[in-house]
Amino acid sequence: MYGLIGNIQAQPGQGAALSAILLQGLANLPGCLSYIVARDPADPDVLWVTEVWDSQASHRAALALPVVQAAIVQGRPLIARFGERHETEPLGGSGLGGAR
Amino acid sequence: MYGLIGNIQAQPGQGAALSAILLQGLANLPGCLSYIVARDPADPDVLWVTEVWDSQASHRAALALPVVQAAIVQGRPLIARFGERHETEPLGGSGLGGAR
Repeated sequence: MYGLIGNIQAQPGQGAALSAILLQGLANLPGCLSYIVARDPADPDVLWVTEVWDSQASHRAALALPVVQAAIVQGRPLIARFGERHETEPLGGSGLGGAR
Repeated sequence: MYGLIGNIQAQPGQGAALSAILLQGLANLPGCLSYIVARDPADPDVLWVTEVWDSQASHRAALALPVVQAAIVQGRPLIARFGERHETEPLGGSGLGGAR
């Protein structure tokens, strides 16, 4: 499995709009086992996106899908900056689609 | 929903043992919508644990369960230190048990 933990700082006041874009249509892509958008309780313009894919190849392939490309085009103007980003190797747990 | 993103540094060489303890029995607790243990691809002794609960109260209640207390007792000696820890407010996504 291939995982990502990423932090995104939205433009001021744009956290809700950005999270809506990130959630719309991106949650059930091929090979995606978990995709969760969360916000910082202290700052609604700071988002955390955690992802688990069956492979890095599936993640790469998803980036080329029209729905993902559209989200990137829509979301990019709402992003102030990307914060920390960690690649991970998920080992297991619950909430991993049908792959547990 | 209530989320946690946490980083744990295991004692040298103990990452696999610690992740096994973290996964054993902890993945399907009441109110737990997602619980994923991952490791740093560059250092198998660095773990990331991402969690989503239906509420903070469910997370607190889980800490008192015997299976969780046993895991804490087993796992603590294998932990060198806790790294960053972020509370989050999950907004949605996939891989959230029955709560989507």
